[in-house]
Amino acid sequence: MADRPISELYWKTPLEAARKPALNQLAKTGICGIIDPISPGTPPGSDAATLAMLGYDPLKVYSGRGALEAVGSNVKVLPGDVAFRCNFATVDKDFVVSDRRAGRIANEDASKLVESLRKVGLKKSFNVEFLFQNTIQHRAALVIHGPKLSTAVSDSDPEVAGKKVLEVKPLDSSPEAEHTAKIVNELMHEFHEVLMDHPVNKDRVKHGLPPANMVLCRGAGTIPRIMSLRQVFGIKSVCVSAISLIKGVCKVAGMNVLNVKGATGTPQTDYMAKAKAAVQALKANDFVLLHVKATDVASHDGNARLKVEIIEKIDKMLDYIFDNIDSDSTYVVVTADHTTSTVTRNHEGDPVPVAITGPYVRRDDVVEFGERTCAQGGLNRIRGMDLMHILMNLLGRSKKFGA
Amino acid sequence: MADRPISELYWKTPLEAARKPALNQLAKTGICGIIDPISPGTPPGSDAATLAMLGYDPLKVYSGRGALEAVGSNVKVLPGDVAFRCNFATVDKDFVVSDRRAGRIANEDASKLVESLRKVGLKKSFNVEFLFQNTIQHRAALVIHGPKLSTAVSDSDPEVAGKKVLEVKPLDSSPEAEHTAKIVNELMHEFHEVLMDHPVNKDRVKHGLPPANMVLCRGAGTIPRIMSLRQVFGIKSVCVSAISLIKGVCKVAGMNVLNVKGATGTPQTDYMAKAKAAVQALKANDFVLLHVKATDVASHDGNARLKVEIIEKIDKMLDYIFDNIDSDSTYVVVTADHTTSTVTRNHEGDPVPVAITGPYVRRDDVVEFGERTCAQGGLNRIRGMDLMHILMNLLGRSKKFGA
Repeated sequence: MADRPISELYWKTPLEAARKPALNQLAKTGICGIIDPISPGTPPGSDAATLAMLGYDPLKVYSGRGALEAVGSNVKVLPGDVAFRCNFATVDKDFVVSDRRAGRIANEDASKLVESLRKVGLKKSFNVEFLFQNTIQHRAALVIHGPKLSTAVSDSDPEVAGKKVLEVKPLDSSPEAEHTAKIVNELMHEFHEVLMDHPVNKDRVKHGLPPANMVLCRGAGTIPRIMSLRQVFGIKSVCVSAISLIKGVCKVAGMNVLNVKGATGTPQTDYMAKAKAAVQALKANDFVLLHVKATDVASHDGNARLKVEIIEKIDKMLDYIFDNIDSDSTYVVVTADHTTSTVTRNHEGDPVPVAITGPYVRRDDVVEFGERTCAQGGLNRIRGMDLMHILMNLLGRSKKFGA
Repeated sequence: MADRPISELYWKTPLEAARKPALNQLAKTGICGIIDPISPGTPPGSDAATLAMLGYDPLKVYSGRGALEAVGSNVKVLPGDVAFRCNFATVDKDFVVSDRRAGRIANEDASKLVESLRKVGLKKSFNVEFLFQNTIQHRAALVIHGPKLSTAVSDSDPEVAGKKVLEVKPLDSSPEAEHTAKIVNELMHEFHEVLMDHPVNKDRVKHGLPPANMVLCRGAGTIPRIMSLRQVFGIKSVCVSAISLIKGVCKVAGMNVLNVKGATGTPQTDYMAKAKAAVQALKANDFVLLHVKATDVASHDGNARLKVEIIEKIDKMLDYIFDNIDSDSTYVVVTADHTTSTVTRNHEGDPVPVAITGPYVRRDDVVEFGERTCAQGGLNRIRGMDLMHILMNLLGRSKKFGA
């Protein structure tokens, strides 16, 4: 949601340019501020930022994307396992990637390919087992299970089409990193051998579709060793999100993850279905995290107008929430997990706005919800990991430090 | 530049009292805030504060003044060497210091003395070599090279005239600290023996000048073990400063240090020559640090009017810079490395103002550059070590944390 001022919007940010009566109501009745999700100037990844917003110190607990995304896709990952986010992709005979998503291959085709890939045998000497699981379209997770593994290995995914598949390399000098890199390279080689002549791919080529003849890996990660929100704060909590990565973060924090029909993580998501699910969930829980991905999608596409429209839809979600909760006993918070610039199309390290409303908050003079108005608010400038502690304090769930 | 409100200026700070159209323009078009160079309430030394402003954590990397100043004076210091800032001084027969600067001895005299001091032999058992080098006037650097040295030793410089030269003492119980203290005491003794009867000093006394019959040491330090700005942010950077200590900090950060004709570090420095050098340097570099010492000198002298005048000259430098850079692709930041009170004449722990202008910054409502106006700005209150990260984020040079 957060952005920088844009010429196209007469030097307003999309949030400043949007019609947003409910968000302004939140700012007016609440206490506002700005948040550095990780630290001032550091562009946050969504996973690390969400961990921080849930109260964990990202610099201490973040352990890579792969495991979080796998967990969020219902792939089983055990402590110590190293997991990767994978793509089915199309490569030519020189291993140059022509399509990083193999034509966004259908779930059915991907499932058939995965069935064959699971039969691949790894050398006994590696002393590991692997789990390979497709999730949606070209997306998949690879989990390696065994002793002496490391997340300190590079990606094989070159991130852009037209480049060669990369060799996975150890990122430090430990034998574990070398061992893990060898396993992944070997697996990718074996996968390619199976995929090349696979009937599904022969059929795809016959129908003019790009064959899924390669698997690309990235984001080696393990499960963060953290206590659950229930353990830390004694709360029962739920997450409403369409995004595997966010779901994974919430799961490792011990939250219950709801699957909402029509929630897609795209600008076409069913905003109101998510708002309704969140309100419903609040009846049996202490804390609900309602996450909308669409603003980030619009920013990555450089579409300022779309971002404004999405924020106006989010405003309607908030309006619905205000109308359907008990404002005498409920706190409502709105913030973003990072700034995404619609100009650079990247996550940026600028702070994000936040507003908290609910019983007994120290209401300030801010009357409009925005990046710059909130900077004048009573919360001043805080860190992402501070937010949950501030909320739990309002809820009476914080532990005293000292006597 | 930063100060406290002063009765003489009708309870304005020198910065608030100054005519400063360019600084106000910066505040008006940019985002403002206040910075704790080290931490709230901690009076910063220039060296530690400059390290922080360059993005390093001063509490982790600061390792004493001596080595930084030596490096800044082009004296060679290797990792592990312990270096001291030294003064030629005048003492009486009871080792009471009568002049801490030996009448600000001329470079020529000091060089002749150094030539003799270099011949001093240290006991073989110490297992060290030393390098002694005069820089400007009474100033010199002592570098000790060898195994098992420590910076945990006290100063021999009593800091004020009328007091006795101090014995250098170990500041912890390590054998390294004891060893280093012994070496320095022995050297100071040997130096004194050579200086007492030196023809240069006999000649000085004959001409009514105070003899440079003692060397005072302070600020034991080693080179901080830090990555260069190029390694951290991938930037090519330059420093324009007349001060050895600042030059040394910039050198250890891997910056190129320019020597500008007329730059003296005094209120009489050639301000415009420095501004021109900075603008010129920007053409071939990503980052230029332009440092002016004069405001600090005025504060240490308790001269508020002079400080106001100097700030007005700095304002003209900024005006020149604005007129000669490409504002579509350049960020301009003004801040101070510490508050110096013109009343206490000391560095103080009050925060310093900052303003950043350039493409896509979240401009705020501050229209005047000052200690108190900037406290209302959109950056709120940050740490010294945050500033560089915020700038590098604007430049697109920051690394994402998380995925």
